[in-house]
Amino acid sequence: MIKNIDIKTLLIDKPLKLDCGKTINNFPLAYETYGTLNEKKDNAILVFHALTGDQFVTGKNPLTKKDGWWSYAVGPGKAIDTEKFFIICANVIGGCMGSYGPSNINPKTKEIYGTNFPVITINDMVNAQYNLLEFYGIEKLFSVIGGSMGGMQVLQFVSNFPDKSKTAIPIACTPSHSAQNIALNELGRQSIMADSKWSNGNYANEKISPDKGLAVARMAAHITYLSKKGLQEKFGRKLQERDDLKFSFDADFQIESYLRHQGSVFVDRFDANSYLYITRAMDYFDLTKQFGGNLSEAFKKTKTKFFIISFTSDWLYPTSENKDIVIALNSIGADVGFVEIQSDKGHDSFLLEVPEFLSTLKDYVNTTYDNKAQ
Amino acid sequence: MIKNIDIKTLLIDKPLKLDCGKTINNFPLAYETYGTLNEKKDNAILVFHALTGDQFVTGKNPLTKKDGWWSYAVGPGKAIDTEKFFIICANVIGGCMGSYGPSNINPKTKEIYGTNFPVITINDMVNAQYNLLEFYGIEKLFSVIGGSMGGMQVLQFVSNFPDKSKTAIPIACTPSHSAQNIALNELGRQSIMADSKWSNGNYANEKISPDKGLAVARMAAHITYLSKKGLQEKFGRKLQERDDLKFSFDADFQIESYLRHQGSVFVDRFDANSYLYITRAMDYFDLTKQFGGNLSEAFKKTKTKFFIISFTSDWLYPTSENKDIVIALNSIGADVGFVEIQSDKGHDSFLLEVPEFLSTLKDYVNTTYDNKAQ
Repeated sequence: MIKNIDIKTLLIDKPLKLDCGKTINNFPLAYETYGTLNEKKDNAILVFHALTGDQFVTGKNPLTKKDGWWSYAVGPGKAIDTEKFFIICANVIGGCMGSYGPSNINPKTKEIYGTNFPVITINDMVNAQYNLLEFYGIEKLFSVIGGSMGGMQVLQFVSNFPDKSKTAIPIACTPSHSAQNIALNELGRQSIMADSKWSNGNYANEKISPDKGLAVARMAAHITYLSKKGLQEKFGRKLQERDDLKFSFDADFQIESYLRHQGSVFVDRFDANSYLYITRAMDYFDLTKQFGGNLSEAFKKTKTKFFIISFTSDWLYPTSENKDIVIALNSIGADVGFVEIQSDKGHDSFLLEVPEFLSTLKDYVNTTYDNKAQ
Repeated sequence: MIKNIDIKTLLIDKPLKLDCGKTINNFPLAYETYGTLNEKKDNAILVFHALTGDQFVTGKNPLTKKDGWWSYAVGPGKAIDTEKFFIICANVIGGCMGSYGPSNINPKTKEIYGTNFPVITINDMVNAQYNLLEFYGIEKLFSVIGGSMGGMQVLQFVSNFPDKSKTAIPIACTPSHSAQNIALNELGRQSIMADSKWSNGNYANEKISPDKGLAVARMAAHITYLSKKGLQEKFGRKLQERDDLKFSFDADFQIESYLRHQGSVFVDRFDANSYLYITRAMDYFDLTKQFGGNLSEAFKKTKTKFFIISFTSDWLYPTSENKDIVIALNSIGADVGFVEIQSDKGHDSFLLEVPEFLSTLKDYVNTTYDNKAQ
């Protein structure tokens, strides 16, 4: 899939012990950077991507030829200004855009791993990405920022490396994946596994691929990224290029056509096994449990300034779950700001053009950076 | 599927013109009754089932050997008292429990219809069931009652037959399927169609069946029937018969195991094509549009007393959509009661043991019946 595109890769030759007990070594971490690292090396921001994101935050994505996933927020003069900051983003391990994952070849068997790849966690992802700080000689990041699964990585990063980032901005996320979140991810996994072309995870060696199952998984997920109200306003019961119902199983309604399209374009850019591995990592994420049931303990050693952002219509990671992080930080007197943005665009609000969100993010990032001497 | 069980069937020899333009004739309508029709024939209640329900409202379902789908509400001394009322419930056309549907044989081709069966609507379902009133010589029902798609049938029934029921109780439903509802149903349909064993709807003639796709569709739907809070309270992050995470794609969490179970038992009792047809009928349901955008017009000719019930945690057919019905009825001075029941059990509340709901339903049904002379 990733042939013929320019993938920047860090080959990590330091062993990484995974949560599952296995150790990986000499593995690739694909990443991208935007802007310039200044001389003091104090303007670096590590951006973490969400489930189906990648390292191509902004500009043209070389694979899809579309704008990067966070083009609304990241770029010259934007909320995260690439003329001011040095932005690094890596494809998570387990992913399919050049980082070590299930579509890599197992050097022992010379076959593609498939589901023989070790199960990874958010903790493993973050530990792998820490190598980028060493590579660039960055003593302390200005910020770690991410939405959804990216926000989980923000939380885990600060917990693992309490003195490595001045600020942290987890957006639309949760400290612990809920039963409903697990259920929705399991739905996606079962949909992939139900496709006979998944072939117990071995499809890549057999030169087939479970496109239909992956497309259904994407449709399911896509519904959860939007709000009921947003869907109603955007699509309602509008018909797709027809004057009346056709009394068939074709896509009569625009929403049907839209979902089918979302499913079909997704399979061109994503690997089904990576979808299994990354959703699994999300489901395993429970920072509260990592600290014996007390989330505050995760942040006790850090002086990082937190800014937490949630969205009113996000039912996947609702404000209440984002507030759990605020409460945990407040209870130890941490430096924490919080804002709930009014938006009908659901969980996807952080990826879309939501002016109040973008200006809030911009103000926080710039003000905090410009006042850093204080 | 329905062999060797006792299915009561009315053979309808009066032609029924469907909304799609086709006419069906000599078709079976499978139904069940509970209690005794009194001499005055004024104690009959027509119960409409939801998407995956059937005519076996209470007692043992002869196919599944489990309690009927509304056993909490219907039975001797229950909210809908079978010692007092004569309850009739028919399997909807398009269904798979004996009524005319895609698993029937097309008399012209001698093959199973599959997706050559005509697309049906809620209106068609209700018109087919009206024959039961004539069969029993019932001039006026005491009530039409149903939840979810059953509630849609209640609305359509009163609209079609304004003087045929004294009361009407639509529960947890909507007058018009929303974009999110359509999206979720389309997800289920795509999941079935993605299964290579669906074979363009012709699986039954080929003696195969798209069990995996149908199971995924059921899992998807099941998540929507429960609330986020209810799922969290019931399952949370509890593990399934293990002390710790297994770092695999087995069902680590109880919620995963529960969903897989729901999917697998469903395929033993339901037909994949019926799932397509019935979800399509729900998506096509838009009573407001049937009356030119003015829902009140649907009820202008009726003197039926309405009682509408919604549930606080139902996000599939939320209180706001149920209230649209109340508002439409109020605007024409209709006799309408409304109650929103506090429950964490989501859309499924109407099927479960929710004491406040059951007692409210019981009080309304009994008081209205006992005061009928007034």
